[in-house]
Amino acid sequence: MTAETTVPTVSSAPKKTRKRILTGDRPTGRLHLGHYVGTLENRVKLQEAYDTFLLVADYHMLTTRLDHLDEIGRNVRDVVLDNLSVGIDPEKVTIYLQSLVPQTAELHLYFSMLVSVSRAQRIPTLKEQMRDAHITQPSYGLLGYPVLQAADILCVKGDLVPVGRDQESHIELTREIARRFNELFGPVFPVPDALIPSDTLLPGTDGNTKAGKSLGNAIDLADDSETVRRKVMGMYTDPARIRATDPGKVEGNPVFAYLESFDPEKAEVEDLKERYRGGRVGDVEVKKRLVTVLERFLAPIRERRARFERDPKLLDEIIRSGSDRARAEAQQTLHDVRRAMKLDYFGL
Amino acid sequence: MTAETTVPTVSSAPKKTRKRILTGDRPTGRLHLGHYVGTLENRVKLQEAYDTFLLVADYHMLTTRLDHLDEIGRNVRDVVLDNLSVGIDPEKVTIYLQSLVPQTAELHLYFSMLVSVSRAQRIPTLKEQMRDAHITQPSYGLLGYPVLQAADILCVKGDLVPVGRDQESHIELTREIARRFNELFGPVFPVPDALIPSDTLLPGTDGNTKAGKSLGNAIDLADDSETVRRKVMGMYTDPARIRATDPGKVEGNPVFAYLESFDPEKAEVEDLKERYRGGRVGDVEVKKRLVTVLERFLAPIRERRARFERDPKLLDEIIRSGSDRARAEAQQTLHDVRRAMKLDYFGL
Repeated sequence: MTAETTVPTVSSAPKKTRKRILTGDRPTGRLHLGHYVGTLENRVKLQEAYDTFLLVADYHMLTTRLDHLDEIGRNVRDVVLDNLSVGIDPEKVTIYLQSLVPQTAELHLYFSMLVSVSRAQRIPTLKEQMRDAHITQPSYGLLGYPVLQAADILCVKGDLVPVGRDQESHIELTREIARRFNELFGPVFPVPDALIPSDTLLPGTDGNTKAGKSLGNAIDLADDSETVRRKVMGMYTDPARIRATDPGKVEGNPVFAYLESFDPEKAEVEDLKERYRGGRVGDVEVKKRLVTVLERFLAPIRERRARFERDPKLLDEIIRSGSDRARAEAQQTLHDVRRAMKLDYFGL
Repeated sequence: MTAETTVPTVSSAPKKTRKRILTGDRPTGRLHLGHYVGTLENRVKLQEAYDTFLLVADYHMLTTRLDHLDEIGRNVRDVVLDNLSVGIDPEKVTIYLQSLVPQTAELHLYFSMLVSVSRAQRIPTLKEQMRDAHITQPSYGLLGYPVLQAADILCVKGDLVPVGRDQESHIELTREIARRFNELFGPVFPVPDALIPSDTLLPGTDGNTKAGKSLGNAIDLADDSETVRRKVMGMYTDPARIRATDPGKVEGNPVFAYLESFDPEKAEVEDLKERYRGGRVGDVEVKKRLVTVLERFLAPIRERRARFERDPKLLDEIIRSGSDRARAEAQQTLHDVRRAMKLDYFGL
């Protein structure tokens, strides 16, 4: 690992004594409470037990958002801020930018020889991505999106990849690529496992089953108190309920879903549900409790965010030094790859 | 062009006052007389008028020859030796290795977003390549082969690309990519033109219409005198001719095709044809003349080859310094690309 000695080592743990996690976000904009419940909460826990690499996947933005590239620079910083604000510790986690590790593109080129076109076409997420991005003709690059993900994961030799169930097929492809490479050229890569979290999906403020930035129904981690209050007070509840004394429905009611996720006092939430069902508490009172709960939840998050926002140079330094470390790892991986493939004829 | 000042400049001409040619070879093995007639002869002439970049395309070997990678290192040096031996001047031409310019892989990734899958599938050479390499299922990388070629050409902002008629469709795709990029992000790339040479195809020694390494019917530029003599004396001629006094056929007779290509004394070749048709000269005499002609043609080629073979360090140094120069050019191109795409948010 000679390449590694030239860059600051973020983790003090000796390399690879702990399993390595590869996780990350596409820089599409600010993260919201739905991301917290589905991903970030788990990510913060995992950083204690694993050597975590957190990728900000800006290359991936090219597959579907060629017309919005000017936003990426801002989004990269926002997404890192969001991660830091919920408690991701840059001393423990290597936070890095995909495009600052161009070895990814090289590894992607090698891997593209190991996957047949028809195999890539069978990845079930391709059609979803096309639908979501209103794309009728997939680009060659979009078809290769899961191959690029395999390069992300294997570039830093990730062992574990926390992903939603919808991305399981991508990890399966990564496993196939790792196995095929090792079989053809010798053991270079771990065969990574997917870490599928429990399926907690936070509904939107409008009652939609999913909160989403593009749906305009999410509470952002960066929202200020007034915005949170306004969003909560305007939340969809039980539409059949007219008066506070009408029996109300708790199921499918986002106010209660948010309370369940963020209110630490579980007994009180149960009591509130009971009273709601019996027509003994008004929507406004329940919503006010949720405002208080979220304010309490968001207070330390806002504090951490403010600290990093006051020091944009520190933020960039975190991304840069994480990227330096990831690049050194990737360089070593590419060295191993080229030696295994017998492409090291110029001592690369 | 700050990056350029750090590497030796091969050409003394100020940059880009002359049009730039991108040409190259896949390192599949030694080049032969068919390559000379079809490509190298023209390449040697072009180096006087153009700023020539000569690419040894080792990444491309991965698309079809994953099981023969151990040969590439030898083949890279052979193909450069062949070029030097026919008169390519490393003082005039930037000779470089594709994998020493990894920016190619990054540009390929960007370009892969600009080409639809169905457009890539319509490239007519794909089916031929699959047939030639006995591939039934194209890999994702093989489908992207022409996109990688576009990255090769545009990485060094080539203006002109000498290619056979069979590769014209690749240059058309390169032109589409350059136009589409410029349209979306601003004028970064030239729209390169194909330079299609006259269709001179040297037949094989066995009478096959094409000489080819894999067909075992070619005379290599590196063949020694004894091998050349043996191959010429065993050449296919007119099978209907039994005695030297029988009238012979000149058309489809490789001995005469070679004489036409390599004998500088055109009048004598015409006279010989006349006598052959009239049954007034034997096969052996004609072949002996061809041996003499080829020996004269190959003498200076062998001399140059021997000079470079005596000094393998010089050969590697030529490839390295050419690759340094090409890499600096590619770095500048990627800088332009990322700025145009607004991906320079970390000052890349």
